[in-house]
Amino acid sequence: MTSDKNTDTGQEAADLARRTRDDVLGRVEERLRSLLAAERDVWAGVHERAAVPVDALAELIASGGKRIRPAFCATGYLAAGGDPHDPGIVSACAALEMLHVSALVHDDVLDDSSRRRGAPTVHAAHTQLHESRGWQGEARRYGEGVAILVGDLALVYAETLMAEAPRSVVPEWNRLRSEVMIGQYMDVHAAAEFSANPRISRLIARIKSGRYTIHRPLVVGANAAGRDDLAAAFEEFGEAVGEAFQLRDDLLDAFGDSADTGKPTGLDLTQHKMTLLLGWAMQRDERIHSLITEPGHTPDEVRRRLVATGVPGDVEKHIGGLVERGCKAIADAPVAEAWREDLADMAVRVAYRNT
Amino acid sequence: MTSDKNTDTGQEAADLARRTRDDVLGRVEERLRSLLAAERDVWAGVHERAAVPVDALAELIASGGKRIRPAFCATGYLAAGGDPHDPGIVSACAALEMLHVSALVHDDVLDDSSRRRGAPTVHAAHTQLHESRGWQGEARRYGEGVAILVGDLALVYAETLMAEAPRSVVPEWNRLRSEVMIGQYMDVHAAAEFSANPRISRLIARIKSGRYTIHRPLVVGANAAGRDDLAAAFEEFGEAVGEAFQLRDDLLDAFGDSADTGKPTGLDLTQHKMTLLLGWAMQRDERIHSLITEPGHTPDEVRRRLVATGVPGDVEKHIGGLVERGCKAIADAPVAEAWREDLADMAVRVAYRNT
Repeated sequence: MTSDKNTDTGQEAADLARRTRDDVLGRVEERLRSLLAAERDVWAGVHERAAVPVDALAELIASGGKRIRPAFCATGYLAAGGDPHDPGIVSACAALEMLHVSALVHDDVLDDSSRRRGAPTVHAAHTQLHESRGWQGEARRYGEGVAILVGDLALVYAETLMAEAPRSVVPEWNRLRSEVMIGQYMDVHAAAEFSANPRISRLIARIKSGRYTIHRPLVVGANAAGRDDLAAAFEEFGEAVGEAFQLRDDLLDAFGDSADTGKPTGLDLTQHKMTLLLGWAMQRDERIHSLITEPGHTPDEVRRRLVATGVPGDVEKHIGGLVERGCKAIADAPVAEAWREDLADMAVRVAYRNT
Repeated sequence: MTSDKNTDTGQEAADLARRTRDDVLGRVEERLRSLLAAERDVWAGVHERAAVPVDALAELIASGGKRIRPAFCATGYLAAGGDPHDPGIVSACAALEMLHVSALVHDDVLDDSSRRRGAPTVHAAHTQLHESRGWQGEARRYGEGVAILVGDLALVYAETLMAEAPRSVVPEWNRLRSEVMIGQYMDVHAAAEFSANPRISRLIARIKSGRYTIHRPLVVGANAAGRDDLAAAFEEFGEAVGEAFQLRDDLLDAFGDSADTGKPTGLDLTQHKMTLLLGWAMQRDERIHSLITEPGHTPDEVRRRLVATGVPGDVEKHIGGLVERGCKAIADAPVAEAWREDLADMAVRVAYRNT
């Protein structure tokens, strides 16, 4: 009887935790929308054209996305005992999403990607507009230039939002953003060099994806709640689950369905991204290098070859181990049982997602 | 005798004011260097390659620049009675310069400019590196991608610095940055359309140059000192002198010497920048449009034609009027005499600079 009651109570606590987080995340959506609506008003008052970059961001925000970073930030905050009614945490979560939007817009230029969240990317849309109007100058430079500025504007709005959060988040926020930029640089550099080096691939995945997506958002949340004693557990959890997140990303890019992901698949291969998946596969089968770099080979040829190395199966096994490591890291953390369970659920969701 | 003594005292006060500002600006240079040195250490510890984007910024900072925005911010702060020993103002001034570095790096991609401060631009240097190494992928996309990330990193460091300034600067800082991005968007859009519209040209010059360079840095400084009563006078001064600054920029681009400016001249013309200079000239002589947009015409042909319209002389006259308007705006501002004099001197210097 007692154990049944405990289970019921545990279930109730878990439901309450989830509802509390959903409520915060609902207000994050409102904050994103209200900021962009206010900016739209200001700029449309200056000149209708001045609102175009704001509209580009509003469309990207409205077109979906998984909101993984706000979810981890809100979870870190609530697990740390933060007040769910404090507007500061809503702004912090919104800032993380806005930073992500900035990174996506710039990343799509870096990768020359044509679609994002089921719609044309910012640079593709504006390149096309330039062409259709027969404007002066080079259409590509125009489209990519607009995307640079739209991404910059999102970075500015991310800061505007984070300035509303408690000051205790500043050091972690500083680390998070410089890591994203440096990690991205290392990523494009490794793609240009394109020599298999799993150590570098893991380093890049850790810096530009894992920390940015899971570890640091959790710590930003905990710090917003005034708790820095959770940093070590959140780091251990975030490093493991973050790597699992990135490996799933690699697999989805190579083998996923673009109808699910809303972006082109196989882009890592055409852009020579030196993912861990590819790094391991190239170490086992050196012909993969030429299949990717030399013309005349289809993505399907590369995929068949990748499967033949056995690496995708090994990556799946590695993901399983990382999720286990993440769950263990959080098992003894000084947070309520409901949040430990919830973080374990989140680890599974990000590691086994299909979009 | 009395008037002589007053003059002496006035001179002493002016000298002291200038020395105090120079001292603040000296510490701004140190803060820029110390931030980048600390970041270099962190990233070189992760991987030697990870320090490359930081080094790119350090080189740009070390290669000179006029430091106009820090100078106006420090002046606004000291004129408002701020404590010259407060490290917060040093960080605010450094943040403005770092934002400017970010804008320059991205702007050079937008304009496809090859040189900056006497050295290759970031994207040109990395495009060239890619070519010389024979790396994978497109050299242009690599070079421009690196420049996007280096500019993003500078924007992040600008925020890191501004987070050390008094919180009272936040609203003005938010306006300043979004204005830069939106103003730049309007600028590339006008260049693409390339139809003479002096009203739009003035709007763009006001948003992306004047406010960003003079008006808002002055107000950021005053707000850092806790004074918001100076906003109106600084706005009036900044709008006028800012427009003079931008008009001088237009003239220097069209007729200046690249040995002085450290960047290519004539770039506005080849990039179809719809400057006020050009907008006015095109209204007087419609053949200028085809001289610029159709192939086979030399920059010198365009320059001769511009001169023939008489517009450069009118622009000079307009600059004179703007400087006068700026000086008048500051004449009755509630700040010490020495600072009013100094601001008038600064107005003349930015309006009649040759770099």
